[in-house]
Amino acid sequence: MKKIINEASHVVNEMLEGMVAAYPQELRRLEGYDVVVRNTLHQAKVALVSGGGSGHEPAHGGYVGRGMLDAAVAGAVFTSPTPDQVYEAIKAVDTGKGVLLIIKNYTGDVLNFEMAADMAAEDGIKVDKVIVNDDVAVENSTWTTGRRGIAGTLFVHKIAGAKAEQGACLEAVKKVAEKVIANVRTMGMALTPCTVPEAGKPSFDIGENEVEIGLGIHGEPGTHREILRKADEIVEHLMDKILADLSLNQQDEVAVMVNGLGGTPLMELFIANRKVDQILKEKGISIGKTFVGNYMTSIEMAGFSISILKLDEELKSLLLEPASTPAFKN
Amino acid sequence: MKKIINEASHVVNEMLEGMVAAYPQELRRLEGYDVVVRNTLHQAKVALVSGGGSGHEPAHGGYVGRGMLDAAVAGAVFTSPTPDQVYEAIKAVDTGKGVLLIIKNYTGDVLNFEMAADMAAEDGIKVDKVIVNDDVAVENSTWTTGRRGIAGTLFVHKIAGAKAEQGACLEAVKKVAEKVIANVRTMGMALTPCTVPEAGKPSFDIGENEVEIGLGIHGEPGTHREILRKADEIVEHLMDKILADLSLNQQDEVAVMVNGLGGTPLMELFIANRKVDQILKEKGISIGKTFVGNYMTSIEMAGFSISILKLDEELKSLLLEPASTPAFKN
Repeated sequence: MKKIINEASHVVNEMLEGMVAAYPQELRRLEGYDVVVRNTLHQAKVALVSGGGSGHEPAHGGYVGRGMLDAAVAGAVFTSPTPDQVYEAIKAVDTGKGVLLIIKNYTGDVLNFEMAADMAAEDGIKVDKVIVNDDVAVENSTWTTGRRGIAGTLFVHKIAGAKAEQGACLEAVKKVAEKVIANVRTMGMALTPCTVPEAGKPSFDIGENEVEIGLGIHGEPGTHREILRKADEIVEHLMDKILADLSLNQQDEVAVMVNGLGGTPLMELFIANRKVDQILKEKGISIGKTFVGNYMTSIEMAGFSISILKLDEELKSLLLEPASTPAFKN
Repeated sequence: MKKIINEASHVVNEMLEGMVAAYPQELRRLEGYDVVVRNTLHQAKVALVSGGGSGHEPAHGGYVGRGMLDAAVAGAVFTSPTPDQVYEAIKAVDTGKGVLLIIKNYTGDVLNFEMAADMAAEDGIKVDKVIVNDDVAVENSTWTTGRRGIAGTLFVHKIAGAKAEQGACLEAVKKVAEKVIANVRTMGMALTPCTVPEAGKPSFDIGENEVEIGLGIHGEPGTHREILRKADEIVEHLMDKILADLSLNQQDEVAVMVNGLGGTPLMELFIANRKVDQILKEKGISIGKTFVGNYMTSIEMAGFSISILKLDEELKSLLLEPASTPAFKN
């Protein structure tokens, strides 16, 4: 295992220390917890809390800030955060307007965030949740009942975050988050596995010229393996699956995210985006906004995902609102 | 070679197509050239042009925009752009206030940018240049006489860009760029080589537990190879070399960049930043601003560099000025 780390068992703690050291104006660590909190809480807004296993950086700590999240909870690598950590995050950011939990659909995450919500509700905090399940690759998976939540989660952070920042009530913020979830689809592929530091070896073996289509962000199996094809063919396949599930018509407008899984050079993401752009334009679909980069990663995995969000006037306007977080600025 | 590409010989062209497709409001391609230009030129400012071989994305096209570059010229992967390409970039962005070329110190880049400057001068365009040589690892190298120009170049783009945006004259923009160059030092290390698409195989071989200290962003040899040590020890070594070359005293203020080479997970960059932060604070040096991410890459190389910029009031103020480019926003 070749990694720039000290001890495998310290990676999450040391990563969080390095993160808050980098952005002391924006972030603070909740003392004694693996929770990153917005430094200056906006006192009159619904608070947004997300998180999950570590290894998906900049998700989710990098999205804490003005116009996005108020707290992010970091579990061990690829492991759900425990309910007490989520509970502390909720308590730290609630200002009386309520808290919305944005949960990626993994069984452990859903269970632990829900337990935390129950604990907070007993304290009289108004808590609600949405569950993101944007991955069209497979129904059910290693750690998931139903579809997995992956890079499309970013659009939920951004749009619900903008709505909350405008002072909307918890019900309204939840409603727009659910609208994003109903309109976003993602599918990915990988060239290489990744190595969880405490495991010390790659999460799976894959042949020299082989790729995995539709895999999850923890290396969960996808739809199939195949010999590496040209970028344009791969993108066509992923877009076919996405567009088969997300009904789009001519004149519709979308937002696009071409997301690197951590080890993919930006050059390749741009080459993929070129084809995404061509496919959408050929169908008469316009693109309101495109994001290309490492937004939701799998440690150092090489590969990428495509997310398509169908926009309406409200979603577009909220997507384009200012946001200022370490990893996402508008 | 496992890459998300179509043809190895098309990567630069297709990458640029995918880049301008992603940011149509910010960027346009100079038709017929591998040049990316700021979409709306600021008519009354010195223009900044940079570039170099491709493979360092988001450098340099990602830094074209308000408060940074006006044009970026993309050579073939790890190959200097030809003088005619640089010449076209200069002509496209000059508005009569003059053009500053920001060149990373590689023999081919310096030669070709200088030839382009001569061609533009014959047209009556006022052109000047600065050469960035921030890499403290080695004197002279595979493609360089003197020190190499690497990630510290970002600080030159940002600070000279802010100065130009304020309407300063060419001499003043050049002067502040030179002040950045005089005050920035960088050193890096790598865990893995990278593969130039047209070569089809890794740029060098390296043992399972071996790392290369001080290597260049094209895989040029560094100071030595060693067995992979703990992150903190690696950072200590790089910081020792940097601080031996950049005289800093208690009370001084610096900006920090922990730069990933393309294949390094953000988790590891934050772990490295944790130690950078500790070392500086122990010395009584304050940190005005920290950047952690993939700013100047070597395709999919795993590894990182540390850049330290000694700030004064002027440099800090310009560094913190707003900027809005695809890959850098303040």
